Formats: sequence, C-alpha cells, structure tokens
Amino acid sequence: MYRVAVIGATGYAGQELVRLLARHPGVTLTLATGSQATSTPRRLPALARVWDGDIRPLDIAAVAHEAETAFLALPEAASAEIAPQLLATGMRVVDLSGAFRLRDEAARARWYPATPAMPAGVAYGLTEFEREAIARAALLSNPGCYPTAALLALLPLERAGLIAAGSDVVIDAKSGLSGAGKAPSDRTHFSENHGSVAAYGAFSHRHTPEMEQAMGRRVSFVPHLVPLDRGLLASNYVTLRAGTTAAHVAEAFEQVYASAPFVRLTGSQLPEIKHVVWSNFCDIGWTVDEAGGRALIVSVIDNLVKGAAGSAVQNFNVMHGLDETAGLR
Amino acid sequence: MYRVAVIGATGYAGQELVRLLARHPGVTLTLATGSQATSTPRRLPALARVWDGDIRPLDIAAVAHEAETAFLALPEAASAEIAPQLLATGMRVVDLSGAFRLRDEAARARWYPATPAMPAGVAYGLTEFEREAIARAALLSNPGCYPTAALLALLPLERAGLIAAGSDVVIDAKSGLSGAGKAPSDRTHFSENHGSVAAYGAFSHRHTPEMEQAMGRRVSFVPHLVPLDRGLLASNYVTLRAGTTAAHVAEAFEQVYASAPFVRLTGSQLPEIKHVVWSNFCDIGWTVDEAGGRALIVSVIDNLVKGAAGSAVQNFNVMHGLDETAGLR
Amino acid sequence: MYRVAVIGATGYAGQELVRLLARHPGVTLTLATGSQATSTPRRLPALARVWDGDIRPLDIAAVAHEAETAFLALPEAASAEIAPQLLATGMRVVDLSGAFRLRDEAARARWYPATPAMPAGVAYGLTEFEREAIARAALLSNPGCYPTAALLALLPLERAGLIAAGSDVVIDAKSGLSGAGKAPSDRTHFSENHGSVAAYGAFSHRHTPEMEQAMGRRVSFVPHLVPLDRGLLASNYVTLRAGTTAAHVAEAFEQVYASAPFVRLTGSQLPEIKHVVWSNFCDIGWTVDEAGGRALIVSVIDNLVKGAAGSAVQNFNVMHGLDETAGLR
Amino acid sequence: MYRVAVIGATGYAGQELVRLLARHPGVTLTLATGSQATSTPRRLPALARVWDGDIRPLDIAAVAHEAETAFLALPEAASAEIAPQLLATGMRVVDLSGAFRLRDEAARARWYPATPAMPAGVAYGLTEFEREAIARAALLSNPGCYPTAALLALLPLERAGLIAAGSDVVIDAKSGLSGAGKAPSDRTHFSENHGSVAAYGAFSHRHTPEMEQAMGRRVSFVPHLVPLDRGLLASNYVTLRAGTTAAHVAEAFEQVYASAPFVRLTGSQLPEIKHVVWSNFCDIGWTVDEAGGRALIVSVIDNLVKGAAGSAVQNFNVMHGLDETAGLR
Repeated sequence: MYRVAVIGATGYAGQELVRLLARHPGVTLTLATGSQATSTPRRLPALARVWDGDIRPLDIAAVAHEAETAFLALPEAASAEIAPQLLATGMRVVDLSGAFRLRDEAARARWYPATPAMPAGVAYGLTEFEREAIARAALLSNPGCYPTAALLALLPLERAGLIAAGSDVVIDAKSGLSGAGKAPSDRTHFSENHGSVAAYGAFSHRHTPEMEQAMGRRVSFVPHLVPLDRGLLASNYVTLRAGTTAAHVAEAFEQVYASAPFVRLTGSQLPEIKHVVWSNFCDIGWTVDEAGGRALIVSVIDNLVKGAAGSAVQNFNVMHGLDETAGLR
Repeated sequence: MYRVAVIGATGYAGQELVRLLARHPGVTLTLATGSQATSTPRRLPALARVWDGDIRPLDIAAVAHEAETAFLALPEAASAEIAPQLLATGMRVVDLSGAFRLRDEAARARWYPATPAMPAGVAYGLTEFEREAIARAALLSNPGCYPTAALLALLPLERAGLIAAGSDVVIDAKSGLSGAGKAPSDRTHFSENHGSVAAYGAFSHRHTPEMEQAMGRRVSFVPHLVPLDRGLLASNYVTLRAGTTAAHVAEAFEQVYASAPFVRLTGSQLPEIKHVVWSNFCDIGWTVDEAGGRALIVSVIDNLVKGAAGSAVQNFNVMHGLDETAGLR
Repeated sequence: MYRVAVIGATGYAGQELVRLLARHPGVTLTLATGSQATSTPRRLPALARVWDGDIRPLDIAAVAHEAETAFLALPEAASAEIAPQLLATGMRVVDLSGAFRLRDEAARARWYPATPAMPAGVAYGLTEFEREAIARAALLSNPGCYPTAALLALLPLERAGLIAAGSDVVIDAKSGLSGAGKAPSDRTHFSENHGSVAAYGAFSHRHTPEMEQAMGRRVSFVPHLVPLDRGLLASNYVTLRAGTTAAHVAEAFEQVYASAPFVRLTGSQLPEIKHVVWSNFCDIGWTVDEAGGRALIVSVIDNLVKGAAGSAVQNFNVMHGLDETAGLR
Repeated sequence: MYRVAVIGATGYAGQELVRLLARHPGVTLTLATGSQATSTPRRLPALARVWDGDIRPLDIAAVAHEAETAFLALPEAASAEIAPQLLATGMRVVDLSGAFRLRDEAARARWYPATPAMPAGVAYGLTEFEREAIARAALLSNPGCYPTAALLALLPLERAGLIAAGSDVVIDAKSGLSGAGKAPSDRTHFSENHGSVAAYGAFSHRHTPEMEQAMGRRVSFVPHLVPLDRGLLASNYVTLRAGTTAAHVAEAFEQVYASAPFVRLTGSQLPEIKHVVWSNFCDIGWTVDEAGGRALIVSVIDNLVKGAAGSAVQNFNVMHGLDETAGLR
C-alpha cells in the first residue's frame, strides 16, 4: 500500500481526491491538509464515513513523514513554492495546478510567473499520450480541465495530419461552476449563473498556451460557464486536410484509443455531459462534413474527475506501475 | 408625476425596484443610489435602456431634494438609521427591510435590535389586508417575502375561524437564491446549491415573529433554499376546526380576495412557481381533507416582485391614491 | 386599436405572444386559438388576469372575422397551409415558423418541403435590417431564434467588409430548453438536461441556410442545449480582414445600431443571458485579437422574446407604423 | 459469486442497479432486460465500459436460467405479474415497485389493485429496521423513496415514544425529477420544472399508506418536485411528548443507528442533498424546540441510490449474508 497525502483538501478538486483515494485499493490516505499552515482543522460533511480523518493545517515535515506521494490541489503560486520542498524530501508529487505545465520559459513567465524554473523530473500528465514519461516522473503536472477535453479530442487528428495546415482551430468549451473554484465571488454566486451562460477569458485564458504547446499550433479557445456544477463539454471545430473522410477521422481515434480504458468513442452520436459525470471517462464523438472539409469533435468529461482528481489518480497509477484504472472504476 | 428615489439600488430587490419604477406611468425615478455615501457610481448591464442614470453614492440631502418618496432596499440596520432622517425631511418612505415590521418592543429588541423605537406613521404593508392604514402611512414597512406568501394563504382561514384553536400551523417554505441576497458567500455559491436543497433557520428565522404578529398564534416556520433564482412556494399545513368543509375554505378565500388584483385563486389545482415569476401575482390553491380535518394551502410568489419590489410599488400606489396595479401589469 | 389573433397560443412562443399582445397599448387581442380545429378550449394558469379569454379551437373564418392581423405560432407545415388561407381573406400575417424564411426554391424544397411556393408580399423580419420591406409586408416571416442572435452579431461586420473573404465563420450557440418546444420527449425530459449540455444538428440544423442566405457565405453552425429555460447565447468566431482593428469593429456596430431600440452594445464586456431574459433586447459584445486577426462576437437574447414573440411584435409595430417599441418595454 | 439479473434496466432506477451491480465484488450481473418481451435490444451510453452487455427483451425463462436473484425495476402492475412467476422458479426477487409493500388487504386493494394477494416470504426492506426478516425473504419489497427518507427520520422517535400521542406528523418532502421516472410527459418536461417548484398528491400519494403502516399512525405527507435530478429531502415536523429534550432526541437516533453503516447523524447541523448524491447514505439532522415541544427532523437521500437501487443492493447483501456495504462504498 502506497501512503499518500492530499494538500488542499477542502477545495472541490481536493475533496474529490480524498473521495477517490479513500477507496483506492492500492493506497492509504494517511493525511489531508488545508492549503495553509494556519488552516483550522475540520471535517467535511460529504466525506463522513468516506474518509474520517481531520483535514489538518499544512505541515511539510508531517507530509514528508507520513506519506510517500503528495497530491497538491492548490493555487499555482502555492504549488510553485511547495512542490520543490516536497521533492527535496524525496517524495513524488502530483500537482493539479498550472504551475508546472508550460515548458517554455517565456510562456511560463507570462502565464505562471510564480514558477521561474522547472524542477527536474517533470512530466505533463495527459495520460493517454504520455505514459512513458509519466512512469518516470518525480513531479507529475496534471493537465488543466479544458486542455484535457480539448486535447483528447484534437491530438489524434493533429498527429494523423488530418487538420489542414495553417487553418484555425476553434475550441468553444462549456464548463460547470465547480471549475471556477470554491471561493465565493460575484462570478460564482448562484443567482448570477442560474438561467444564464457567460463567456470569459476569450483568446486569453491561461489554458490556451497549454493547448498550443501540445498541438504545436495556434488555437482559438473560449471557455463559457454554463449553469451546472460538474461537467465540461468542448466543441472543437477543425478544417480538414483535403481528401479527409469520416473514415479517416474514425480510424485516427480508434488507433490512438484502442487500449485507453477511460476514453469512450461514441462516433457520430455526440456525447453529453450527463453520461460522464462522477466518472473518469472522456467521451468523444464527431460530425464530419466531408464535402465541406470540416469537422466538429465533441468531448465531455467531469471536470473534477477526468479534468482533475481522477486523472491525477490515473497518473499516480501509471507512475507506480499499478493498473491504470485502480480506484477509478 | 411623483418623484421617487431608490436607495440601495444594486441589490436584487433594489434592481427590481428600478426596473418597475422606471416604467411606472405615475412616477419619475429621479435618482438611485448605492447603500453607502462611499459607493462608487456605476451602471448595471441588465438595466441599460430600462433606466439610464448612474447609481450614485448615498446622499440624504440629495434624496430629499430630488424626490418626494424614497424606497429603501437596505439591510435593516441601515434602514433603521436612514428612514427617520428621511421622514424628518417630510418625505414618505417605503422600507423593504425588517426594521419596522414588529410592533412589539420586546420582539423588536430581540429580532431587530437596531430599531429601538418605532417612528410615528408606520403601516405594515400587507396590501390586501391593510389598505386603509397604508393610505395614511408616512413610513410603509413592506412585509418579508416569506410572510407575504404565508399570510396571504393563512389569514383568510384564520380570520374566518377555520383553523382549529390551539393547533399547530406548519409553514414549510421553499425559496430561490435571490432571496438570500447578492453578497457572495459559501451559502450563495452556485455549486453549494445546484442539485441540492437545504433547510435553514428552523423555528428561528426572523420572519417567524412577523407571521405570528399577524396570525395571533404560534407558527412552525422552516424556510428552505431550492436551486432556482426567483420564486417562493409556501406549503401551509393547518388543522381545520371541526365541521369545516372544502366549500368553507373556498368561500373564505373568495370573500377576502374578491377584488384583490394580484391574488389569483387556483382552487384544487395547486399553483407552481413558474406561473408567477416576473409578475406581482400571488397564486393560492388548496387541498382539503374534510374527513381528516386538515388542509394544505399552497401559495407562490416571485420573491423579488410580490415578495419585495412589486408589493412595495403596490403599496406606493395605495399610499398615493393611484390605481393599485399601476406599473405592475 | 388593431384587432389581432394568436394561432397556436398554447406553445411557449404562443403563450409569450398572448402575454405581450394583451398589454400592448395599440392592439386588442380578440382571440387566441390552439393549433387545430379539434383543440379543446382551455385556459393557461400563467395567463390568468393577463388575458382571460379561452384558447379556442382553430377556425379560419372566425379568425378572419374577428381580427385584422394573425400571429401564427405553429409548426411550419401548419403555417405553410394556413398562412395562404388567411392572406386570401385580406388579413396580414406574422408567421413565427420557418415556412417562409428561405427565398431560394431549392433550399426551401430541402429544408421546408411543405412550402412549395412563396406567397406574394413576404418580408423576412430581421427588423434591424429590413424595416422598409417589413413596413410593406402582407406576410411577415419572423426569423429563427438562432439566426436572430447570430445575424445581429455578424451582419454589421459582414456588411462593413471586416470578415476575411473565404474564411470560416463558426457559430457555436447555446439555447435554453424552451427553444426545443413544449412537446414532451426524451430530448426535453428534465433529467436528460439537468446538469448536462448536448450539441445537436451539427452543420445540419435548418437555421443554417437561413443564416447563409443573409450572410451570403457559408457558416459552420452548431447549436447546443444548455440547462436553462429561456435564453440563447451565440459565440460567433470570425477571421478579420487584414488590418482590421478593434476600433473598426466597434464602429461597425455603432453605425448599424445607432438608432436600434433593442440592440445594446456592451463592447469588450461580454454580455450574459441573465441580462436579457424576459426582455426584447439583444446584447452584443466582442473581443478582438488584432494581432491574431480574429474576433469573437457574443450575442444574447431571450429566445422566446427577441427570438420569437417579441420580435414578432416589433415587426408588427413596423408593419403598422407604430412606435417600434410599443408593447415591448 | 451470485448470479443476478436486472429486469427493467432502461429506467433510471434500473440503470442505477446496473451501475451498482456491475462493480459489486460478490455478484455477476449475467443479464439485464427491458420491461417487455418486445423491448428492442439496446445499450445505454452512460453504461459503456461499466457493463457492456445488451439490454435484452424480457424472457422469464432466460432470467431463471441465467440468474439466481432478480432485481425488478418495473411499474407495479408488471411486478405484480412477474414476481410470482420468478418466485415459482425458485429464484429470490428484489422488487423495487410498490406492488408488495402493503400488508393490509384493504389498503392494497385501494393503492395497488394489481396485487390481490401477497406471496409467501415477503419482507419489507427498510434495512435498518428489518434485517432479520430480510435475511429470510424470498421476495424483498424495497421501500419507496419517500418512505425511506421519512421513516429513517421518524421511526427512532416513534419507537422511543417521543412523539406526542394523537399529534399530527407533517412530512413535507422535496424530490428531484428522476423520481418522476423516465417517461416523457408535461410533468417531466424541462421547461415546466426549471425555476419552479410544484406540490402534488397532497395527502393522497400512495407512499402515505406505506409510511402509516410503519408508523402506526396517520401522517400528513405532501411531496414536491424541485428542479434537480437526483436527491430527496424530507422535512419531518413532530410534536414532542411533554418533557422531551434535545438530548432524548439525539439519544434515540444514536441508539438505533449505532451500527448502521449508511445512516450518518449530523445533529443540529441540518443535512443537505448535496452531501449524499451518488451515495447510499441517508443523512439525518434535527432542530429541537424544547420550550415549544416540537422538532424538525431533516433527512436526505439520493432517491435513485438509498431511495431505490442502493437500498435494493443493501437488502440483497443482507439476504445473502454478505457485508451490508458490499458494492456500495
């Protein structure tokens, strides 16, 4: 049994980590902490009987003493500071923030200025594409929720060369409010979102460079908040290389995901958020307009599971040579 | 044209007042202010073209100079302080807070300690039952949203003597989140309410003494937050006096509301929130179990309209001898 | 006072027409009917005291006798059949279906086969762009909800020549469920939509040819159902002609809509559905990436008002020389 | 490994059964069928990779051949017909309908006329109170969702004699729409429920006699539909026997549920639906007004899990001597 800790356990992704790790057959969740040394010890009602420890103040030495791997569900500035300290004790770290996602220094300086340098042994945790690097990682940088949905939908086509060179890729994403975090604000107030939809961060969301790093091309990404709690749907619009057929598209997906336990291909039946909530699945479907040379790829995930805590556990499994699905069924 | 001002125009009830008063054929909305002298001037996107003035910092002298009647949509401590100042200038005041709702000093000391004394000329604005007092009022104290729904459902039976003496009256109310106000908090966070229901303030909500004052008996009142924005449904359970029939119940309602423009009786077809949102209607229906000697009375309102801004305008109309429905159709 | 009738008054758009016309200062709503000669007479609870007539069975002769203008809120096959009969009596008709929206015969044969020929005197009712044709129309064909939102956002740029020739225009739209109509189905079941989002009709929705007819170019249109009742947000992605600045974009909108009473420009602050529900406004905002040569235009409407009944009334006003805003404030 | 079948697997409770049984460590789900011999074989997108069999037409002989225990998620008339046939083959049956819940013949004749006689070996499956009978049952009749929530909240007080003799017990329940079933209807249409609340079946819902049978007294039960999918909150109002203190109430709950794995007592912190969705927990909290001699007991469950499929699995575990929590953590 691997001993693990969750740092930042009171946020939505942190609570989900506790829920998943508490029933993971290969790990013992030895401690969970808040995000600060001064956090008040507490319990969360939804987690009673699921995991009955206190959520304690953050204490790096205690974490290093009681666990071998730490999951960080923290704001990126906190992750940027704490992850190196944990690595220095010899622990392995799974970080859910954006602090260590961008390899390019200039990009990181712009989007994640709290991370001036990348530690050694970082792997980017888009599991389906990075299993080998993940297995060796000391610091696993878990992907953002939007990049997870978009890249799982787009990378198979990009790598198969089916997207027209120089064409624009539009990623219009719709996320539930848990993606906006637990801090109360005008933006997360119930009445501002019920019965409404809002676009934000158009062309300037910090998940954009993460997508562009993986795609090797510019993307036009605009996220939207939709009035639901858990779930994310990405509508990905691509211009196809001349001659591309629906069969080419299907084949590209089937090859890449033939043995991926958490990607379900729905073909021409477009997937819906309802089918994946509370699961680690990413469902992907598509509509190809052969005559028009274009395609829509729709992908859906639970932003707290496959978009955060679930993929973190999936990556943990790969890091430790466990069955990739352990604790996630 | 009566010149009116709205104080506290950025909250949900305040915005609704602006929306209603801006199109009221008998008034000119001359100014709208925030709740403090230091509020930043601003405009609200939903009100563009509806009312195009700035929402200004609060300035009592300006209010008194530019308007004859002020609507206060403020926390009760602020109302308790400001209303007497406005009355002293000779203005009439319509106050939406709880500051001036309880006549009993001991009750007020417990529930609204910021209001040690009641000004002269206060009327309680449950329009359908208080038209004469309202017409003469200098300070109109608008009822709470829960008491509005519960009392419109219960008073006709109470006054007709159809509720068994000494029996318990249970008022189980379900309100949308706009009733919890605009301030961001854990309680008003989208993700804490979507897909959930929560009871709060059981037997101890401060609308209880307001209901008991009007009913002249104890009530068991428990409010609940339900995942919607606007609307309130009260399920009122009563034990009927021996011999009471469904016809007695119907007759009691029909007599009281024969000429009430905003009460719609739906009889045995129970009303739903959907039918009244964005209107000043209160719909009331009932199920009478004659053999069992009990009845359920269901009442629904839009908490921001008939439960706040709409009834305030209705009361304003009565105060000024206007058609009760002016500005509310 | 113009005498008007609503045909198909029990659907969501039909109910909204009744609500708007009942309080319109320039019309008398003389009758409302169901969609069939065999419809059972009924009343709708939400409309009590708003309009208190019975919703009667459909009888063309009665409609022609009692009204001068008929609003049709019917499935397009029914409209295709009934509109010519009403026109033949000399009435003017405002049709909310798609039956008469496409001028091209081949397109109509594919998308609206129930309409083999266009009657004389048809005008397409995108009010802000067609006021002169509308004023003369015998048969006003009201636009679809999606084209209303998309075209109001895109036509100013298209007509100003700011969209790059040959580039793809992506229209990703999110609509509430009332847009799916009142008929119960798996698709409109509460549990299938709560907490979910679903794309449908990708590249093949029949509002596509309506948009392409107005734009004069291909568009990539995909609608989505989001879990809300009323409201529609269109995210419109365009590639800008080289050299286009944010100022050019703003200027294009300001020129076209300088005197449009129901279009509110929000500039770089993107509009949200919440700001327009229950109103006839279309709010439009934009994000221009000058360096990247692209822009996002976001437009929001209430699909039942500006997307259906409200714009129908607005068009009625223009047809009859009334103030364009009559009955819509 | 016990071989089990799910009959009626396409409804919401049926799908939940498949989800739970597919990962239950002690059973093999050998087949799942629709509710009729003529059902078309199909798969459900949300269940892909969870359980990958076809949902087949109903065939009693096949069920008896391939499984030892059958779970029935059928309308009660179908259960009344099919359960005896399955029992006759020697199978054990877990029935989720109301067909076998009422022991009194007159009551059954009124509320469940399709069940003229009770088979031998029926147990009522309110697990926490009936473990011994359940262990011996041939036919397990699973409780209704409302009775589950209400009785778990009320029985400890009733059995401890803390509820005043002859007093009225009011049960005001709020359920998500999945409780209304999967069949499309006006009642389950998204737009009729979003932003709304509706009471129904006041004093006449067929779960009333089920509650009264267990309580041995009359209850005033009114269910409401609230705009969410999964979850049920019951607000239970009782008059306390003279002298009852908050400590008596707490003690009654703690004694009864000391070793109940799925009941979580939250004390004076009232539970919320959000804390139990997608789990088999029933959370119970209370507010006691000692001076007033009254109490509110709030209980919450996921209506599809603890209110249907989860408690069915829990009962299955007890029937077969398995750990009560097997497959439910």
